[in-house]
Amino acid sequence: MAVVGLSWVVATVLGAMPYILSGSSNKLAVRLFSSHEIAPQIYGDPVSPLTQEQYALVDSLVSAGAKGLPARKLEEQYDARMRKWSKVEDPLPDFRVVFEDLSELSHWRGVLIHPGQEPDSPLDRANNYRIRGVRMNIADAIFESQSGFSTTGATVIANLEDPISLPHCVLFWRSSTHFLGGLGIIVLFVVILGQGSAGKALMRNEIPGPSKEGSHSRIQHTAWMFAALYCGLNLILTCLLWLLGMDVFDAICHAFGTLATGGFSTYNASLGHFYQVNHTMGAWIEYVVIVFMVLAGSNFTLLYFLMIGQANRLVGDIEWRYYMGIIIGVTICVMSFGMVYDDFIIDPNTSSFTEFQLALRNGLFQVVSIITTTGYGTHDFDKWNSFGRGVLFLLMFVGGCAGSTGGGVKVIRHILFHKILFLQLEKSYHPSVVRPLRLGGKPVDDPDLQTNILIYFSLILVLFVFGWLSIVTLEPDTTWGSAEEHIEHKLIDSATAVAATLNNVGPGLGIIGATQNYANFSWWTKLLFTALMMIGRLEIFAVLVLLMPRFWRSR
Amino acid sequence: MAVVGLSWVVATVLGAMPYILSGSSNKLAVRLFSSHEIAPQIYGDPVSPLTQEQYALVDSLVSAGAKGLPARKLEEQYDARMRKWSKVEDPLPDFRVVFEDLSELSHWRGVLIHPGQEPDSPLDRANNYRIRGVRMNIADAIFESQSGFSTTGATVIANLEDPISLPHCVLFWRSSTHFLGGLGIIVLFVVILGQGSAGKALMRNEIPGPSKEGSHSRIQHTAWMFAALYCGLNLILTCLLWLLGMDVFDAICHAFGTLATGGFSTYNASLGHFYQVNHTMGAWIEYVVIVFMVLAGSNFTLLYFLMIGQANRLVGDIEWRYYMGIIIGVTICVMSFGMVYDDFIIDPNTSSFTEFQLALRNGLFQVVSIITTTGYGTHDFDKWNSFGRGVLFLLMFVGGCAGSTGGGVKVIRHILFHKILFLQLEKSYHPSVVRPLRLGGKPVDDPDLQTNILIYFSLILVLFVFGWLSIVTLEPDTTWGSAEEHIEHKLIDSATAVAATLNNVGPGLGIIGATQNYANFSWWTKLLFTALMMIGRLEIFAVLVLLMPRFWRSR
Repeated sequence: MAVVGLSWVVATVLGAMPYILSGSSNKLAVRLFSSHEIAPQIYGDPVSPLTQEQYALVDSLVSAGAKGLPARKLEEQYDARMRKWSKVEDPLPDFRVVFEDLSELSHWRGVLIHPGQEPDSPLDRANNYRIRGVRMNIADAIFESQSGFSTTGATVIANLEDPISLPHCVLFWRSSTHFLGGLGIIVLFVVILGQGSAGKALMRNEIPGPSKEGSHSRIQHTAWMFAALYCGLNLILTCLLWLLGMDVFDAICHAFGTLATGGFSTYNASLGHFYQVNHTMGAWIEYVVIVFMVLAGSNFTLLYFLMIGQANRLVGDIEWRYYMGIIIGVTICVMSFGMVYDDFIIDPNTSSFTEFQLALRNGLFQVVSIITTTGYGTHDFDKWNSFGRGVLFLLMFVGGCAGSTGGGVKVIRHILFHKILFLQLEKSYHPSVVRPLRLGGKPVDDPDLQTNILIYFSLILVLFVFGWLSIVTLEPDTTWGSAEEHIEHKLIDSATAVAATLNNVGPGLGIIGATQNYANFSWWTKLLFTALMMIGRLEIFAVLVLLMPRFWRSR
Repeated sequence: MAVVGLSWVVATVLGAMPYILSGSSNKLAVRLFSSHEIAPQIYGDPVSPLTQEQYALVDSLVSAGAKGLPARKLEEQYDARMRKWSKVEDPLPDFRVVFEDLSELSHWRGVLIHPGQEPDSPLDRANNYRIRGVRMNIADAIFESQSGFSTTGATVIANLEDPISLPHCVLFWRSSTHFLGGLGIIVLFVVILGQGSAGKALMRNEIPGPSKEGSHSRIQHTAWMFAALYCGLNLILTCLLWLLGMDVFDAICHAFGTLATGGFSTYNASLGHFYQVNHTMGAWIEYVVIVFMVLAGSNFTLLYFLMIGQANRLVGDIEWRYYMGIIIGVTICVMSFGMVYDDFIIDPNTSSFTEFQLALRNGLFQVVSIITTTGYGTHDFDKWNSFGRGVLFLLMFVGGCAGSTGGGVKVIRHILFHKILFLQLEKSYHPSVVRPLRLGGKPVDDPDLQTNILIYFSLILVLFVFGWLSIVTLEPDTTWGSAEEHIEHKLIDSATAVAATLNNVGPGLGIIGATQNYANFSWWTKLLFTALMMIGRLEIFAVLVLLMPRFWRSR
């Protein structure tokens, strides 16, 4: 296990190279807030608030991304914003004057670039007004790489659709890390972890292999089969997505993100992009992805049985039943509450049937996306009612089935945890009654299993609490902007950020919500998140042991 | 234990009677928010927003409490508010016209009472304009009674200083429930729980009694000694507080609240009231109360040793050392962060020495108040920086020492929990190394202790999570007012409310913060909090077993 831990570290560092070497930018140097009265931030530091004109200009440039805008277009957008916000003077102050005045200010010097200022930049940008991008630093790259390999899907890249700041080849590498991470989990963990007796209880791993030829060869056989199954599912989903209208690049990237339960997309609106482009096809794409997310969150041993025609073993499995039960139950609750609070509709004249359709699609998608720890978004669940947000937060800790690519605590551990609690409560009052722990009718005979489950939950709890306290302590308030009301969210946003990285989910609530990203965190917090993602992925023990001095001494 | 559980329920119901029978009001029918643009609530339901004049008038009446104001004073206050807020017209609209107009509105009918409208009301109110009070209902009374007996100190009474809505005798009964609850905990629990071998490990209960005469008589002896010690400490603190300038009534009530680690005060500003009245005496009172809170959170067995002159047994105790260590360590952190963020000072010209004094007194007081689960407030810690608020939230789960009147999980369980986690982590990599669990150098030989500790933490976690989700789901958003930004706090406020009741602390963050109360929650949430307080106080098992059908069947 220690070897796995170390090689994971090496893979993460190597995986971070492309981001650094390509010189990709993950965000612009300027961060604006909802109004010109709130001080903007340059390279993360708050500077003096802008005037109305300056805000309109900078806002136009920020929306244009790293490529910037030619003079004519910039003027158009600046005018449109000014006319919308202020009904006062005509004529407007000239945008060139505003631009030059602003770029004279000490903080803004070098951040705003006017045409011809950088003659050696590529042609498509040389004649544009633009804002300087910020190159990804090592912490960003390590975070993104770990997020990919651990199939978390949390990103520090604010603008994915800007081919200048982020070339397509880097975007492809980003999705590939999901594929590789998922493959590694399936092959290494499922096969290795399924060997011990406690592992067997968790995985119910009884693959019929060439058992007479010794355990080594049998492991190899299982590993090959799982790898083939995983790659096959990726291929099928890619084809389906391509048939539903994605181009090949998007289809591959989204298939990688789905089967690895990762969640990296190639669009800022995540998978919701396709619905925005085409309502019919987008809805189909979402339903197809829901099915494959459910599959990716299932035990691969059971998927293997499904493949060879023994569907009853999948349906009869106790963990899978609970997993489907949770998905269906929570979806019904989320839909009901969401429809009562009108969370899914914008237009109040929507018919009940359309509302039901929206609730079913968006509710089911988000529930599946979070419980399988994929983290794709189609709807801004941060705008849902408190019940919906609260229950999604708790779902992060559920996770997929054991033996899947999903993260989180895993459904089987929750089942065992609740059974153990109930047995112990009973035992403390009837010490004479000894009842064995049963799973699907069969008694579980491993005496260590009970302690292991309790210890696992305790460790998750301790990691969550200390992770949360560290982020609340270390992360400056400016990450939440300077408005009082935003800082008030620090406690809850930090909690969801820790939950989302520790359980390899991706998005959380508030500033890391469905439409947001991790770009604005400071580098030390990003490294902390990186550690949490790794700990979550390697199921804690493999990582923590590396930190124990006694482990090294006694080798 | 089941007997204890049942008698606790009976005591709670009986203790609720005085609140109902006295006809006390816990709040006024009208709830106003920070501005006239936010819809006020009448009996908990939002009604249409008020005009500036109406708001000024109702605000004056709300501040006056249940007694109301005579015409002359009301006019004065109304004028003062109007002149502060609007600089426009002179003359002001007459307050009588505004009052009559408002009381004609359907929602407001019967809520606003003008002089002479209720001729049979007591003389001191008959000639006043006033707002109707809301009598405490059964849920309020049960909550308040449980909060007293379980020494939580959470209150549903919005205005404690209004002798008309809340007579002094009821206020005294309220504090007495703390005294009785604390006595019950010390005598029943400490003595009974300290008997089993696991109990002995937790309590380190080796009181030298007349051991030869049999265990029954020894228990009786111990119980008498603890009761005498508890009453003696109450008496000493009462005298000290009286000497420091409190009147006898306040001194008794605050002594009851301190030694029981309860936290019911007789003033709206809690213990901070005395500092507001007299800075020097108030500061002394706070330091004295700090010392007695620390004592109340210590193991009474050790206090007994301290009394008979064996101070070394107190100082040498591992749990007490950790307890003091946590208090000192966290206070230093809270002070440092608080001074960096200027949390303790209002006037920016305060000298560093004064700031240090303020930080020491307020920081230490809040840390001790929360860790001992007393819950007195001297400073609105809800305005602290995120670290301070976050760490106080975590401290709620620490609690006092085993064998004290403090609630929470108890320090010794945390020590054992972390030792068990560390041992298990080590064991999973070196299965051959068997290391016994040690506490203060001595191995703990009870094999069940480890499972018990883990189960205890698991149960707390499960209760916390389900309590939180229930409140987020069941409590309507209107409790948080109608402003968007307030509703955003629902998730974190609910979490602290559950933590504050489950651990018998009292105040939490946000709408139940140091300057707030539980009055605005709906009755079903209040009953849920009541259950949590009881579960927390009876250390879970005694309560949960009552809910298990198998327990009843097999009797």
